[in-house]
Amino acid sequence: MPYRIAKLKEKLCENQLDSYLVSRPPNLRYYTGSMGGSHLLIASDIDPLLLVSSLDSYVVKDQAQGCLVEILSQTNQVSQIADYLREASCINVGFDDLSHRFLHRLKERLPEITFIQNHEIIWSQRVVKDASEKNLVKEAGRLADLAMNALQEKLTLGVTEYLLAAEASYAMTKEGAESHAFDFIIGSGPRSAYPHSSVTNRKIKRGDLIVVDIGATYKGYRSDITRTFIAGRPNPKQMEIYETVLRANEAAYSEMKSGASCKYVDNVAREIIEKSGYGAEFIHSLGHGIGLEIHEPPTVSQRSMEKLEVGNIVSDEPGIYLHGYGGVRIEDTILVTAKDPIKLTRHPRKLDEVVI
Amino acid sequence: MPYRIAKLKEKLCENQLDSYLVSRPPNLRYYTGSMGGSHLLIASDIDPLLLVSSLDSYVVKDQAQGCLVEILSQTNQVSQIADYLREASCINVGFDDLSHRFLHRLKERLPEITFIQNHEIIWSQRVVKDASEKNLVKEAGRLADLAMNALQEKLTLGVTEYLLAAEASYAMTKEGAESHAFDFIIGSGPRSAYPHSSVTNRKIKRGDLIVVDIGATYKGYRSDITRTFIAGRPNPKQMEIYETVLRANEAAYSEMKSGASCKYVDNVAREIIEKSGYGAEFIHSLGHGIGLEIHEPPTVSQRSMEKLEVGNIVSDEPGIYLHGYGGVRIEDTILVTAKDPIKLTRHPRKLDEVVI
Repeated sequence: MPYRIAKLKEKLCENQLDSYLVSRPPNLRYYTGSMGGSHLLIASDIDPLLLVSSLDSYVVKDQAQGCLVEILSQTNQVSQIADYLREASCINVGFDDLSHRFLHRLKERLPEITFIQNHEIIWSQRVVKDASEKNLVKEAGRLADLAMNALQEKLTLGVTEYLLAAEASYAMTKEGAESHAFDFIIGSGPRSAYPHSSVTNRKIKRGDLIVVDIGATYKGYRSDITRTFIAGRPNPKQMEIYETVLRANEAAYSEMKSGASCKYVDNVAREIIEKSGYGAEFIHSLGHGIGLEIHEPPTVSQRSMEKLEVGNIVSDEPGIYLHGYGGVRIEDTILVTAKDPIKLTRHPRKLDEVVI
Repeated sequence: MPYRIAKLKEKLCENQLDSYLVSRPPNLRYYTGSMGGSHLLIASDIDPLLLVSSLDSYVVKDQAQGCLVEILSQTNQVSQIADYLREASCINVGFDDLSHRFLHRLKERLPEITFIQNHEIIWSQRVVKDASEKNLVKEAGRLADLAMNALQEKLTLGVTEYLLAAEASYAMTKEGAESHAFDFIIGSGPRSAYPHSSVTNRKIKRGDLIVVDIGATYKGYRSDITRTFIAGRPNPKQMEIYETVLRANEAAYSEMKSGASCKYVDNVAREIIEKSGYGAEFIHSLGHGIGLEIHEPPTVSQRSMEKLEVGNIVSDEPGIYLHGYGGVRIEDTILVTAKDPIKLTRHPRKLDEVVI
């Protein structure tokens, strides 16, 4: 991905860095297009240098674009990397992730070089998705929709959460999802009140709220969708919390515009839930960025200092959780554009569409 | 898991540490039994203290055994943790994973405390699986076998790698696997020569070698199995490399005994492959530890300095990769015991059992 590396080089310059040593796997994938690399050295006067283990060299050479690929020594990595840094005349080296020991040994060998951990420089770039990334998240969203649809078709009294997870997994994997975007959450009955639940062998019962939070990974990129289903005719309380969460979701969605502060967007949803009397039960933030990782910047929360920009992809996921009773969360993956926001997950979610 | 924490305390003492700050998620799960924690402070004169975000507090309080659970501040984590370290009269604090910035800020607040990154102290414990862990990996192995069996039933000319992955995923998820243990590898035809392949929409053709490397996660614990299938009657070269890899696998398996050096066990397999003339095509190490993570210590390789111990769980996975032609790998998850090693994955693998 030479254009991404070129942009990083501009940002290095603005941050008084002349080089950057990339080691976090999602960052390596972002800059090289390849999954197998170990370290990537980006410096002013050399071509990007990707170090790989010999095991991965064939795959990486096929995948990595615009990089020199060298085999990483298995016995002497610190010396090898120190030599490259010296040869590239590095002075101020940014890095994302090096162990304390590795960094200490690098510094011993290179007392003339300053090392500065700087995640922000990469996040400021990754937070704005480019065209290729938008297409990949869109496809991951399509796969998550397929999975939610397959799950809903099997959702009936007496089936286990396990079986529902299997149906979702099958549908997305058959069409090309390389993995689940995260461990699925299928919380039925009282378990729906745990925002971070899991999947169990509990069987669906009449009257259950069923929170289903799933996502697909496609070529490294992720999607995130939650639907809450209701087993049987909803009672007035279920209807009230469902409709409240849906209104909060819709209201926040329509504010997800370039320039809007994340704090404001969170607050739009939060006020609706507070006015319905459930403010204390909306116990998490409204959303998070989604891309190569399932939780990325920006954070759409009460404490967030960020503003939404064109090209952000974030979740919109208000929820109400009544401990011991049940919960409702409704979530979609949203692309911020120069005009209206675009939903990248689209499974139906009106009240009458989620009653089973 | 109070007994695990008690054992860690003994090890701290041997290492001149009086306390340890655990932050890596698999380590947190190992010591607390819970997935949701953020930091765990273990010190001489206090009960283990688990810090969690407010979002996860209900789930963590249900799961975490033998720990005090406190809510982690969202705005002032460094100060909060510094206060706990001071109150616990810590002097030499081991830690597994803190960012450079977080550590720097802790040290600023606590100049009287020494912080020492030490992964080994935890790995030396985690590398020997206890009874509960053995049972969980065994179940993860059973789920992987179910998945391999379901996949083989659908394996026929014309099906895509995607569909095969979906069948495997469905079978394991329906029975309780919470996720894939890693991104599945299904490499058919020439793609079978990539040890770290992926899954594509390529259709199975007559004459293909098909490397299928899958695993299940069950309650956090993982399994790892590879089978290589052959589409149609194998030709002499395919038979030769298949039988060579199988012999190497079997020979190494029978040497996986307590006290054997990992280097020796790797070499047993490697010599068989070298004698068949394919030494240069066995391009990775024989195996790796498996547990809460898919790649753990010990490493069973030519350079390994470790010895196998009772309670180790490792993969046994020799392979031969002929670039442009195809490859064969055969892998099982193996438990080292006081007597003979035990296979925790058992799908059939004789030559006539993998011809489809």
